[in-house]
Amino acid sequence: MRKSEAPVTVIGLGLMGQALAGTFLRNGHPTTVWNRSAGKADQLVAQGAVRAGSARDAVVASPLVIVCVSDYAAVRELLDPLGDVLAGRVLVSLTSGTSEEARETAQWAARQGGAYLDGAIMTGPQGVGTAEALLLYSGPKAAFETHESALRSLGGETTYLGADHGLSSLYDMSMLTLMWSILNGFLHGAALLGTADVPAATFAQAAKKGMLTVADWLSSYADQIDGGEYPALDSTIDTHLAAMEHLIHESVTLGINAELPRFIKALTDRAVAGGRGSDGYAALIEQFRQP
Amino acid sequence: MRKSEAPVTVIGLGLMGQALAGTFLRNGHPTTVWNRSAGKADQLVAQGAVRAGSARDAVVASPLVIVCVSDYAAVRELLDPLGDVLAGRVLVSLTSGTSEEARETAQWAARQGGAYLDGAIMTGPQGVGTAEALLLYSGPKAAFETHESALRSLGGETTYLGADHGLSSLYDMSMLTLMWSILNGFLHGAALLGTADVPAATFAQAAKKGMLTVADWLSSYADQIDGGEYPALDSTIDTHLAAMEHLIHESVTLGINAELPRFIKALTDRAVAGGRGSDGYAALIEQFRQP
Ligand SMILES: NC(=O)c1ccc[n+]([C@@H]2O[C@H](COP(=O)([O-])OP(=O)(O)OC[C@H]3O[C@@H](n4cnc5c(N)ncnc54)[C@H](OP(=O)(O)O)[C@@H]3O)[C@@H](O)[C@H]2O)c1
Ligand SMILES: NC(=O)c1ccc[n+]([C@@H]2O[C@H](COP(=O)([O-])OP(=O)(O)OC[C@H]3O[C@@H](n4cnc5c(N)ncnc54)[C@H](OP(=O)(O)O)[C@@H]3O)[C@@H](O)[C@H]2O)c1
Repeated sequence: MRKSEAPVTVIGLGLMGQALAGTFLRNGHPTTVWNRSAGKADQLVAQGAVRAGSARDAVVASPLVIVCVSDYAAVRELLDPLGDVLAGRVLVSLTSGTSEEARETAQWAARQGGAYLDGAIMTGPQGVGTAEALLLYSGPKAAFETHESALRSLGGETTYLGADHGLSSLYDMSMLTLMWSILNGFLHGAALLGTADVPAATFAQAAKKGMLTVADWLSSYADQIDGGEYPALDSTIDTHLAAMEHLIHESVTLGINAELPRFIKALTDRAVAGGRGSDGYAALIEQFRQP
Repeated sequence: MRKSEAPVTVIGLGLMGQALAGTFLRNGHPTTVWNRSAGKADQLVAQGAVRAGSARDAVVASPLVIVCVSDYAAVRELLDPLGDVLAGRVLVSLTSGTSEEARETAQWAARQGGAYLDGAIMTGPQGVGTAEALLLYSGPKAAFETHESALRSLGGETTYLGADHGLSSLYDMSMLTLMWSILNGFLHGAALLGTADVPAATFAQAAKKGMLTVADWLSSYADQIDGGEYPALDSTIDTHLAAMEHLIHESVTLGINAELPRFIKALTDRAVAGGRGSDGYAALIEQFRQP
């Protein structure tokens, strides 16, 4: 262990907290750990972590305190009694939640005289500490910069988003909605092809290629969204709509689930009703902005 | 023009048909063209194409006949009267439609003594003829192989899928459902981040990275789907569900559209109700397979 690295504390040693603490240890940070069920610290202690006797002791042990528990209700239950030892420290929550919860926690921390960073981990426990791992932080820039080197050991793609504490969870949510959408599109496609006995593994190859193509379109879609004009580059919304009808018909005829194409078409119908039929697909942003 | 290339006919000279015929010409194929509204042939004729006086003349002109019109109703309206000149030719439809329409057209063509290939173009008109262009064909392998060289000039990623005529449109539909799903996920994410004034262009960078990550998961999801067992590798469906609730809450609180996360959660709720809460996300294939 290179003792020159900055000391850190990790509170919450679930699947993710253990990965975080283990990574700090591997990178030579003197690491203090605490978990509600004490047994989850055992392996880390065997690897050189210091077991704190209480959450309070854990906070006091380091200038950088990472909390990674199930949700923000747990964060606040844990930390609310410890406000008096927060001053002068940087508290980082890597717990998933909404932007509202992140901003509320930041306000609470500010009242205690502590600096707060909200973070989001865009990888699984196995990814933590790798060069590809994307971790996002938002909150006061100075707090991020003070502890950047320690935080960066958790992932090569560590990124500071800005002062608004809500940003990291907004990014988290945005990436999740994209992720579930991709997975659902893939599963629906696999179900369609499954009716003709095409293995999902075969479709996965084509789907991967298709995804790379669509990934290359995102920048031009984004420019249209930011510019507020959506000229059809390739295909109009009207043309998409005709193909969506085929997709519903196909799904119904083959006896598989047609909810996804029906959902896709319902949104698109509204865009057409709103006069966007001859625009490009990016015009659907207007539908997503409306409650 | 290298006159040694095989002669081809293109019927239907909309945006896509013009791109197909233009590509054949550029690759040295003697190209006969026909369109209902004759004017759309003018530019191609100036480039060296032969204008057929009728659809019948167009079919008779070449052993390989490509049809690319709006839909299968148009295909059949056009071709039904021409069955008597189909024998000995290979008819290829690059019109979008359902697998049912493809199989019906194949049966009709077989009754006329013609060979039929159904195709799907997975790119826009500008992509046709490029090394990256993916075009899919299904139907009798011999017919594909006879004309493979001409067909391959339309796209470097030309792929023969199998004898079942429905395969190319099933792949087409599967890629489309994935494409719309990705675009909708991106638009919802852009709307979420837009509430914090994050430009869509900024999100596009992160989204692209995220997509590459998810693309790498597809093979392991596919293996689970093909194997019929869905052990959670990283995250259980129960864990996903908790995050989906955050996403709905976030969308509602920020005053943007919450239909996409509600749709995602409704599917997932059913998987949990079906006992899949502790499995991985791939178990949702069961939901997509049910009407
Ligand atoms: N796992 C992933 O792939 C992943 C990826 C990105 C983000 N995340 C986020 O990381 C966070 C933790 O996830 P995880 O996978 O580590 O979950 P987990 O394995 O279920 O662990 C949950 C942790 O929270 C603690 N906890 C819950 N309620 C508590 C309370 N009231 N007081 C004190 N401690 C409490 C648990 O303590 P006990 O051991 O005492 O129950 C445990 O340490 C979640 O917000 C998750 O969304 C996870
Ligand atoms: N454009 C793309 O990006 C793209 C990508 C992949 C697949 N596709 C598919 O390719 C096909 C053609 O698309 P496109 O973009 O070329 O469409 P388009 O520009 O709208 O052209 C439609 C063509 O169909 C002809 N047509 C329609 N009904 C007809 C009928 N009853 N009899 C004879 N001809 C008829 C039209 O003739 P007139 O000129 O006389 O009206 C025109 O040539 C569609 O199935 C589309 O889904 C297109």
